[in-house]
Amino acid sequence: MLSGGLDSATVTAIAKKDHYQLHALSFSYQQRHQIELEFAQKLVKFFGITEHKIAHIDLGIFGGSALTDSSISVPKNLNTRNPNSEIPITYVPARNTIFLAYALAYAETINAVDIFIGVNALDYSGYPDCRPDFIAAFTKMANLATKSGSDGAQYRIHTPLINLTKQEIIKLGSELGVDYSLTHSCYDPIVKDSVVYACGACDSCTLRLKGFKENDLRDPYQYLN
Amino acid sequence: MLSGGLDSATVTAIAKKDHYQLHALSFSYQQRHQIELEFAQKLVKFFGITEHKIAHIDLGIFGGSALTDSSISVPKNLNTRNPNSEIPITYVPARNTIFLAYALAYAETINAVDIFIGVNALDYSGYPDCRPDFIAAFTKMANLATKSGSDGAQYRIHTPLINLTKQEIIKLGSELGVDYSLTHSCYDPIVKDSVVYACGACDSCTLRLKGFKENDLRDPYQYLN
Repeated sequence: MLSGGLDSATVTAIAKKDHYQLHALSFSYQQRHQIELEFAQKLVKFFGITEHKIAHIDLGIFGGSALTDSSISVPKNLNTRNPNSEIPITYVPARNTIFLAYALAYAETINAVDIFIGVNALDYSGYPDCRPDFIAAFTKMANLATKSGSDGAQYRIHTPLINLTKQEIIKLGSELGVDYSLTHSCYDPIVKDSVVYACGACDSCTLRLKGFKENDLRDPYQYLN
Repeated sequence: MLSGGLDSATVTAIAKKDHYQLHALSFSYQQRHQIELEFAQKLVKFFGITEHKIAHIDLGIFGGSALTDSSISVPKNLNTRNPNSEIPITYVPARNTIFLAYALAYAETINAVDIFIGVNALDYSGYPDCRPDFIAAFTKMANLATKSGSDGAQYRIHTPLINLTKQEIIKLGSELGVDYSLTHSCYDPIVKDSVVYACGACDSCTLRLKGFKENDLRDPYQYLN
């Protein structure tokens, strides 16, 4: 699952290092940061991915999240490090459930059983569908849901980043040669004179910037501030 | 979840009898029998449903099923009664997982916890995602996947038809006053002179016709043969 962000790019590098044949799945879901799909396409070329599908899905019809409902603002400068703090308004109801359900459909169609997803339970925004418990429950369900699962196939959902900090993710990706200038993280990007700038203040920017800083690396992305 | 078919119409009647406030969710997924959505809209009026959402989702991009891939024919005159027979080509990979994931997103957005789905484990086509084990695993996952589940809400997936035969479903629905002329079941319908005819030979037609016959009722739908 390739969003075009820093995490999914790192996961792709890990799967590639482990010699998996790569099929990428991205989602167009009326997200405010639709621009990430252009970065996903850059990453597809960068990694030499065999096939790339973009599923156009309808999350905007339900609303309820700052990421899919343009009437709700993306919050800025929150403390996103505290896992006990409230789940923020950028949470999209059941998003990873829907995304993984599509990944499962795609996997079954191409006879794959290994699904890679860049969820993270440490440096994250407190989303419930990024936790190991959720992934384990989804895996169990997936093996019951499918024809191939009923025939004995065992789906595996790989979450190589789940216990890493953003600092560790960036360190690992850099060692694996990920070009992070090809990744987009900002929830609330601004386009000025055809250049995409990250806001530098949403949860996603805050975590990303911190991760680069802690590695003494410069984030190659362009920020507005 | 309201497809426009006989089962979901019956489930809606059951939920209405039990005094639930009804919100309906249908799916447009490049299905060969897209016409079922017109029947869903008729049922929305018939039952006085509060809100109806149609999610446009992309299952055709993966293919792999006679229901979403126009290059694969819908099989006719199979023995669909034997639960040990092979899962047929009309199986859509991970379809109910995707549908339930959307229903979960919709439920969470409107603060509902009760999801009704017309799956059936007896007179069915052998689809793995219609079995009680799958529904139980999905429910467990749903409570871990969501913000409201993490906050203590308990999602319930109601499957009132899961252990009924098609005969029993039609008997129950008839007692509850369902107008089955407003439901569409055929996987491979034909439109002739603006009239929609059911093929009468696909799995879905075969089960439906048998169910009416066993109740000594006439199926109000129009069949080609």
